[in-house]
Amino acid sequence: MMDQMEWIQGGVTAATGFLAAGAAAGVKYQGRKDMALIYSETPCVAAGVFTGNLVKAAPVLWDREIVTGDKTVHAVVVNSGIANACTGQQGRDCCRETADAVGLALDIPADGVLVASTGVIGMQLPMDKVRAGVSVLAGELSDTLQAGTDAACAIMTTDTLCKEAAVTVTIGGRLVTVGGMCKGSGMIHPNMCTMLGFVTTDVCITKELLQEALRSDVQDTFNMISVDGDTSTNDTLLVLANGGAGNPVISEKGEDYERFCTALHAVNETLARKMAGDGEGATALFETKVIHAASKEEARRLAKSVICSSLTKAAVFGHDANWGRILCALGYSGASFDPERMELYFESSEGKMLIYQDGQAVDYSEEAAARILSAPEVTVIADMKMGDACASAWGCDLSYDYVKINADYRS
Amino acid sequence: MMDQMEWIQGGVTAATGFLAAGAAAGVKYQGRKDMALIYSETPCVAAGVFTGNLVKAAPVLWDREIVTGDKTVHAVVVNSGIANACTGQQGRDCCRETADAVGLALDIPADGVLVASTGVIGMQLPMDKVRAGVSVLAGELSDTLQAGTDAACAIMTTDTLCKEAAVTVTIGGRLVTVGGMCKGSGMIHPNMCTMLGFVTTDVCITKELLQEALRSDVQDTFNMISVDGDTSTNDTLLVLANGGAGNPVISEKGEDYERFCTALHAVNETLARKMAGDGEGATALFETKVIHAASKEEARRLAKSVICSSLTKAAVFGHDANWGRILCALGYSGASFDPERMELYFESSEGKMLIYQDGQAVDYSEEAAARILSAPEVTVIADMKMGDACASAWGCDLSYDYVKINADYRS
Repeated sequence: MMDQMEWIQGGVTAATGFLAAGAAAGVKYQGRKDMALIYSETPCVAAGVFTGNLVKAAPVLWDREIVTGDKTVHAVVVNSGIANACTGQQGRDCCRETADAVGLALDIPADGVLVASTGVIGMQLPMDKVRAGVSVLAGELSDTLQAGTDAACAIMTTDTLCKEAAVTVTIGGRLVTVGGMCKGSGMIHPNMCTMLGFVTTDVCITKELLQEALRSDVQDTFNMISVDGDTSTNDTLLVLANGGAGNPVISEKGEDYERFCTALHAVNETLARKMAGDGEGATALFETKVIHAASKEEARRLAKSVICSSLTKAAVFGHDANWGRILCALGYSGASFDPERMELYFESSEGKMLIYQDGQAVDYSEEAAARILSAPEVTVIADMKMGDACASAWGCDLSYDYVKINADYRS
Repeated sequence: MMDQMEWIQGGVTAATGFLAAGAAAGVKYQGRKDMALIYSETPCVAAGVFTGNLVKAAPVLWDREIVTGDKTVHAVVVNSGIANACTGQQGRDCCRETADAVGLALDIPADGVLVASTGVIGMQLPMDKVRAGVSVLAGELSDTLQAGTDAACAIMTTDTLCKEAAVTVTIGGRLVTVGGMCKGSGMIHPNMCTMLGFVTTDVCITKELLQEALRSDVQDTFNMISVDGDTSTNDTLLVLANGGAGNPVISEKGEDYERFCTALHAVNETLARKMAGDGEGATALFETKVIHAASKEEARRLAKSVICSSLTKAAVFGHDANWGRILCALGYSGASFDPERMELYFESSEGKMLIYQDGQAVDYSEEAAARILSAPEVTVIADMKMGDACASAWGCDLSYDYVKINADYRS
């Protein structure tokens, strides 16, 4: 099945029938694109997963209502700079007004417009600028890859790279495309991170199965990354499927569904890794693979505990093979294992090395370990020697720049 | 009751019958004191609480066995520099050999000697240096306040200040003293931080009640602090009571027990606050007081979530009144509340200010808020408007120096 999946260029405009645009609306940032629009002329079924934070931003409430209802969706409008979180009734009104503006500009119902925001909490959106932005966006919609990239750049906050991924897969004899974009890069600890993610696909699928595929896949992708342990008020991941590929509608689990899930997973995992690797101040992507754990849930818990440990992250930044901090983080994860039986390895493009075995460090070379840890992508492998379950989690190192960015984010 | 409690100078030698010493044994650090000994000629009942980390250092296992048994205790020996964690059988043997050396030097049973270590995980203790250190310590034991301070300095790792506290209280007509010392300052997220804490008292109390008093008090003191969210392998808090005050033995709950608990709490809270304020790289003590929460457990959870938030800690470092991050941290704590009803305040020696009310920011002065946040001790007050429960938690800001210290701790 996997051999039929192909990586392609592009993001949210990769799939048939999806248009996008990015524009500089001056919502808060000046001199850069800060609003994005995604649009499908054909109505889409939409699925979404949202922050587990009790404090939910206004757009999260707006989208959740639409996604859980039975309406189809035509568009997603996004702004960066202001999160529209903790903004009370005025903030909720802004969502409706933004959706109204998009609806008017594209001649679609306002409740077919999803809304997302990211940025500073507690500020109100300047609606005059948002409305002007919507007009510009509507006029610039295009199905080019560049239009997708423009949208992906517009949603960035402290991100340093714009993040896109797309694949094709054959389903029911038709070529199906799944493409997406996302942004980080602080307050990233998805339970559902402010991560925002938007995936578009031309697959033909029922709303129920699209939601199930998304909900299941985030457990192993976006919910397995962390930059700083802070679960944002705005975390949102939306998938829109417009059916443009013309495959027989996927309405039950089976081979077609599995193929779609594989494609969705490939896009989600790639976007999640990009988000982790571009975490605020990050100099390296820090991956932890847990293998031979007793259960999937314990594997996830162990992997995530390591990539969340501030001390371990600081050690990765310093290229310091301080494996004791890793063992410590595994130990307080809440999962059970035998510290005397498990094994730890470091791996990167510079090689792979056993570090810890039989309850103590092996006689490894600190120099060689430091070389492995100096690569741009560093992996810790924890072999729990208990069972068959495995899980990966992705984070980043903790650097001076993380502090710099966050000590003074609002100014 | 409180009016009878008096703060006094001193630490572990404040209480009658306790001697201490600090010595430079060269375990790992050079040119500074790195071993401490506490000793009571009279046998002590001992209580202890230990790390909840599954990976427990060898001294934790040694002490836990003694504290949960029925033997009395005479001494505690501590080294800094090497944690004796993840050191296998050899590490466990080191504990026994260290206790044997102390037993021999002081003519007491080895199983009356508690052992604690803090420092790098995974290194073996150089037993020749430890044994030589024990000899020096035994010869220098003294009941002076300076001897207590020497011990408190010897157990420091990345701490910048030595941490002591002591009080007196009258129980059963006799003057009872409770004094203690502790160290931080990284891997501090006690469930039970490597925090090490040692409290000595001359109260006369049963072992059972001493353990109960300790276990109950840590929930509101040491377990309410966090520097970096990493629960150490070595966290240990020990209390030794030698009965030297001559009060009628406290063998049941009642006024005498409550007085002792008040004194123990005062010492523990002071030590915990000192530890948080001297967290690695900290420029400020960051306190969160949750009031009017629905339950004590929710109050604790809310308070701790805020002081653990990396983004909030970085904002405190930047003197940035980024209250949205506080609300975000309250929101992902797992406790339930109404974000539209609760209120947030900033408070310090520079004043007190309402920041958030009715679901949005009040019209406050950013300048005035920054002034409040520039004090050495900064408090956030979260009024949940739900019930009667309250809790305080203590952390510190997140600075460049935290990263610096931890990117290169082992070298």
